[in-house]
Amino acid sequence: ERDKYENNDVAGVVTGLAWTSVGGDILFIESILSKGKGALNITGNLGKVMKESATIAMEYIKSNADTFGINPDVFDKYNVHIHVPEGATPKDGPSAGVTMLTSLVSLFTQRKVKKSLAMTGEITLRGKVLPVGGIKEKILAAKRARIKEIILCEDNRKDIEEIKEDYLKGLTFHYVTDMSEVIDIAVTNTKVKNAKKL
Amino acid sequence: ERDKYENNDVAGVVTGLAWTSVGGDILFIESILSKGKGALNITGNLGKVMKESATIAMEYIKSNADTFGINPDVFDKYNVHIHVPEGATPKDGPSAGVTMLTSLVSLFTQRKVKKSLAMTGEITLRGKVLPVGGIKEKILAAKRARIKEIILCEDNRKDIEEIKEDYLKGLTFHYVTDMSEVIDIAVTNTKVKNAKKL
Amino acid sequence: ERDKYENNDVAGVVTGLAWTSVGGDILFIESILSKGKGALNITGNLGKVMKESATIAMEYIKSNADTFGINPDVFDKYNVHIHVPEGATPKDGPSAGVTMLTSLVSLFTQRKVKKSLAMTGEITLRGKVLPVGGIKEKILAAKRARIKEIILCEDNRKDIEEIKEDYLKGLTFHYVTDMSEVIDIAVTNTKVKNAKKL
Amino acid sequence: ERDKYENNDVAGVVTGLAWTSVGGDILFIESILSKGKGALNITGNLGKVMKESATIAMEYIKSNADTFGINPDVFDKYNVHIHVPEGATPKDGPSAGVTMLTSLVSLFTQRKVKKSLAMTGEITLRGKVLPVGGIKEKILAAKRARIKEIILCEDNRKDIEEIKEDYLKGLTFHYVTDMSEVIDIAVTNTKVKNAKKL
Amino acid sequence: ERDKYENNDVAGVVTGLAWTSVGGDILFIESILSKGKGALNITGNLGKVMKESATIAMEYIKSNADTFGINPDVFDKYNVHIHVPEGATPKDGPSAGVTMLTSLVSLFTQRKVKKSLAMTGEITLRGKVLPVGGIKEKILAAKRARIKEIILCEDNRKDIEEIKEDYLKGLTFHYVTDMSEVIDIAVTNTKVKNAKKL
Amino acid sequence: ERDKYENNDVAGVVTGLAWTSVGGDILFIESILSKGKGALNITGNLGKVMKESATIAMEYIKSNADTFGINPDVFDKYNVHIHVPEGATPKDGPSAGVTMLTSLVSLFTQRKVKKSLAMTGEITLRGKVLPVGGIKEKILAAKRARIKEIILCEDNRKDIEEIKEDYLKGLTFHYVTDMSEVIDIAVTNTKVKNAKKL
Ligand SMILES: [Ca+2]
Ligand SMILES: [Ca+2]
Ligand SMILES: [Ca+2]
Ligand SMILES: [Ca+2]
Ligand SMILES: [Ca+2]
Ligand SMILES: [Ca+2]
Ligand SMILES: [Ca+2]
Ligand SMILES: [Ca+2]
Ligand SMILES: [Ca+2]
Ligand SMILES: [Ca+2]
Ligand SMILES: [Ca+2]
Ligand SMILES: [Ca+2]
Repeated sequence: ERDKYENNDVAGVVTGLAWTSVGGDILFIESILSKGKGALNITGNLGKVMKESATIAMEYIKSNADTFGINPDVFDKYNVHIHVPEGATPKDGPSAGVTMLTSLVSLFTQRKVKKSLAMTGEITLRGKVLPVGGIKEKILAAKRARIKEIILCEDNRKDIEEIKEDYLKGLTFHYVTDMSEVIDIAVTNTKVKNAKKL
Repeated sequence: ERDKYENNDVAGVVTGLAWTSVGGDILFIESILSKGKGALNITGNLGKVMKESATIAMEYIKSNADTFGINPDVFDKYNVHIHVPEGATPKDGPSAGVTMLTSLVSLFTQRKVKKSLAMTGEITLRGKVLPVGGIKEKILAAKRARIKEIILCEDNRKDIEEIKEDYLKGLTFHYVTDMSEVIDIAVTNTKVKNAKKL
Repeated sequence: ERDKYENNDVAGVVTGLAWTSVGGDILFIESILSKGKGALNITGNLGKVMKESATIAMEYIKSNADTFGINPDVFDKYNVHIHVPEGATPKDGPSAGVTMLTSLVSLFTQRKVKKSLAMTGEITLRGKVLPVGGIKEKILAAKRARIKEIILCEDNRKDIEEIKEDYLKGLTFHYVTDMSEVIDIAVTNTKVKNAKKL
Repeated sequence: ERDKYENNDVAGVVTGLAWTSVGGDILFIESILSKGKGALNITGNLGKVMKESATIAMEYIKSNADTFGINPDVFDKYNVHIHVPEGATPKDGPSAGVTMLTSLVSLFTQRKVKKSLAMTGEITLRGKVLPVGGIKEKILAAKRARIKEIILCEDNRKDIEEIKEDYLKGLTFHYVTDMSEVIDIAVTNTKVKNAKKL
Repeated sequence: ERDKYENNDVAGVVTGLAWTSVGGDILFIESILSKGKGALNITGNLGKVMKESATIAMEYIKSNADTFGINPDVFDKYNVHIHVPEGATPKDGPSAGVTMLTSLVSLFTQRKVKKSLAMTGEITLRGKVLPVGGIKEKILAAKRARIKEIILCEDNRKDIEEIKEDYLKGLTFHYVTDMSEVIDIAVTNTKVKNAKKL
Repeated sequence: ERDKYENNDVAGVVTGLAWTSVGGDILFIESILSKGKGALNITGNLGKVMKESATIAMEYIKSNADTFGINPDVFDKYNVHIHVPEGATPKDGPSAGVTMLTSLVSLFTQRKVKKSLAMTGEITLRGKVLPVGGIKEKILAAKRARIKEIILCEDNRKDIEEIKEDYLKGLTFHYVTDMSEVIDIAVTNTKVKNAKKL
């Protein structure tokens, strides 16, 4: 009962869905900026693949800065730190990709993430979202955490269709194929309070 | 009987609570500054997760330097060394997060830490304090070490309520949800003796 | 049924053929550029040999920039990131060499890769293409994915001749010995949409 | 019978006490300076914790250069190399901390270490000396090596009181709680012969 | 039947002899230059000792640039990449030393390597060639690959004398003790086609 | 019968004595200089302790450049590479210390090493030579290799006195306690042929 959705008042905080040996859970991706020279710090007891997701998200944003309305000079003037609480739990796998991407876009634009939203999906350098596993367990965890909307890969639609209607009540699903759709849905046009001037 | 609370005359020294296979214990987080270029040294026979806590604390302070009244130029002019005695004991886990945060804020502001105070809790990049385990054992250790006040995560309140009243006599608890509350409680407005001019 | 050929509208995306313990599969090599100083990032849960293929491809292109019509100044001004989805699957071996080479040439020239094309083959620094294993399984996977043309090493011709004609219907094979032939066949003269000005 | 106390004519050479599976022994901590940019080299087949002791000693001295009468500019102009003979023996643990600290203070001040003196104790960043194990075995080794004076942590006094008087004849003990006391006792005001001008 | 001698039209490509658990084989050492700052890249699924051979060859050439008629400024302006196909096969041992040396001399002088020639031998920093094992298996592999001349260490002459005359027909042996002899025999005075101007 | 003493016409080549599971052997320490920025390369399939010996020798020479008549500016203008043939044999232990020291002094002074000389002994940062093991086996190997003079630590004299006179015929022993004695005995005042101007 510990992990509930929290209001995302802070830039860079996004809710993801995880699937562990003991069932589904929500997790938070957090990212912050500090004055620096473009270093990328990644913490949270993460395995190699999950760290790679962070690198992919970061490089994708750098390569497509224009699309996201980000001034590329910013990348050289700040260090980025991405963290995934809770440190006692080892985490791995590619499914936090969309969540990390959203976190970094929110961070670099200082715009609010949509509230009551969670997501899960692998990202690629060509801008696609790929399907992931454990969808049923993740959906149950999302409901427990009072999530209202969920972003999934279009290829995961069939996994939702296999879940009993009852379990899905109160949830809205967004099925996407492209990373740009994730950002359109997840990142609002509202700046966070005390937005940093980058 | 070795580990007792010591007066914190030195900036950067904070008392934490640890939970090991042989019960609870107190530990000290120590940090110092030396002229340098912003390197972060971490020692004390620490595992990966505990080292990550130090990185998280450091990056959080860098990202929120204004809030803490720290001139950000300082970060580039000094190296920081964080140490956790006793070197013979391997240590790991996220629960020293609040202690490391407090140590670094005391260090960079050269302000005294409140006396007879101990703390335990995980920290996050979004400024939250998360609950940790082993609360009962940690409280017993705190009493043995003559601690008077303890900072815990609000979500650990229920763990205290399960402990017999007798064991809690003489202890004041501060339940917090945000990292800013930890600093408000733990770091005084008094400079340490011979405070460094940063 | 998940992995199908996709139109290659984006520079740097090339279809390769892989052979795993559960049979053949197609895979995508993706690469992107971001402003930088010539760093090479490689992700996708890759083993040592597959990472070496990426290095070989990159260094071969740097050493033969003229041949490919690439301005060598570009190499110092951008970072390159090569990724192989899907992160949950460990991948290794030298057979993606031709695919990585093609990806990087497409990336640095911003030219489209031929459509409905897949390839497999090891590359060398002297410009040769070497034969690889698992040809039968790879061909079956290519057909399932609606691939129309396949580039193989000349020394793999004999592996194709051992496959029943029926399985090969609808497939055109290009047998090559040199890396220059791969590029001639695979990289078109058409710039991708929104080609980057390098 | 090999390890005897040697006259410390050279700056940076200090006698420590070690406790191994085959009993107590003395060991030497040696350190030298060479023109450089502040690198710290540590050799002697040391484990992680013993290497950390060297880092702690070095950083403590840098942070408290004034106290020790050391011009902080020196740290950027020289490399420091700390070595613990004998290379065939793996060594670890925090108990050489005081010995390393003394070695470095002698090195940077080019002052002689007191003769016929040995020491053992863990050091901390806040300037405390912590107790260590194997005291009885270490004392016997010190006598065999013709040591006359020994520096121990105050908390190790009880270990000495448990040793038969006879074994202690001819030995003077200095019990300390602070690292400054170690330096006061161990480092003389006499420069070594051919002292380097730093 | 895959590995045959190939004409060495490209600088830096030299034929070596290898000895594996499944018998002798030929292998190619390939090296290329790209604009850079003197980095050395080594690939080909090589073990530690074989990588060391590459370092030894490179440093020997740098230290004796005059002898080889190489302008030492070149070393700072280019990166060198040494590769040993075939990536799927792990390789180790010192016996490719002479082959790597020859490859790099050919590369930096842009001169052709003698045709139909193979070699095997360890190299040293003092310019000696040392004997290696597996000579019989290597010779058989050389014949299968249509090699005509072979360079061996003088100390390997006795291994050849133990092989039946029949197996040696058509092969010329060069027994050497010094690395300079290897270069005299193996590297011609003819520039490769399209030689790079270094 | 392979390893014989060789004339040391080249600077930096010194004969050491090794003790392996199959008996004693001689080995060569080789070192060369190339234009650079002070990097230290160490090869020869060496373990951690033997690599440390190289670092100790290098740092000792840097710290005592005056004593050896070496212009300290040289250290920043050259890279040093130390190699121990034969790469197929793993080697470790501190006993090559004196040999490495002698190699580097010969290298930086470009002076000849005394001929028909071998040595074994650990070195320390305070300038002492320490005794090592396997003396009997090493002496037998030295004789087989036609060595005439041997440098040993004074503390190894007793090991020689336990060997039958017959085995020692034709060998002269130099027992030393200090590293300066090693250099006095081993490095002649004659420059090598074609000495580098450093
Ligand atoms: Ca959780
Ligand atoms: Ca997720
Ligand atoms: Ca304790
Ligand atoms: Ca704690
Ligand atoms: Ca797949
Ligand atoms: Ca492929
Ligand atoms: Ca000893
Ligand atoms: Ca000690
Ligand atoms: Ca082969
Ligand atoms: Ca070879
Ligand atoms: Ca040998
Ligand atoms: Ca030796």
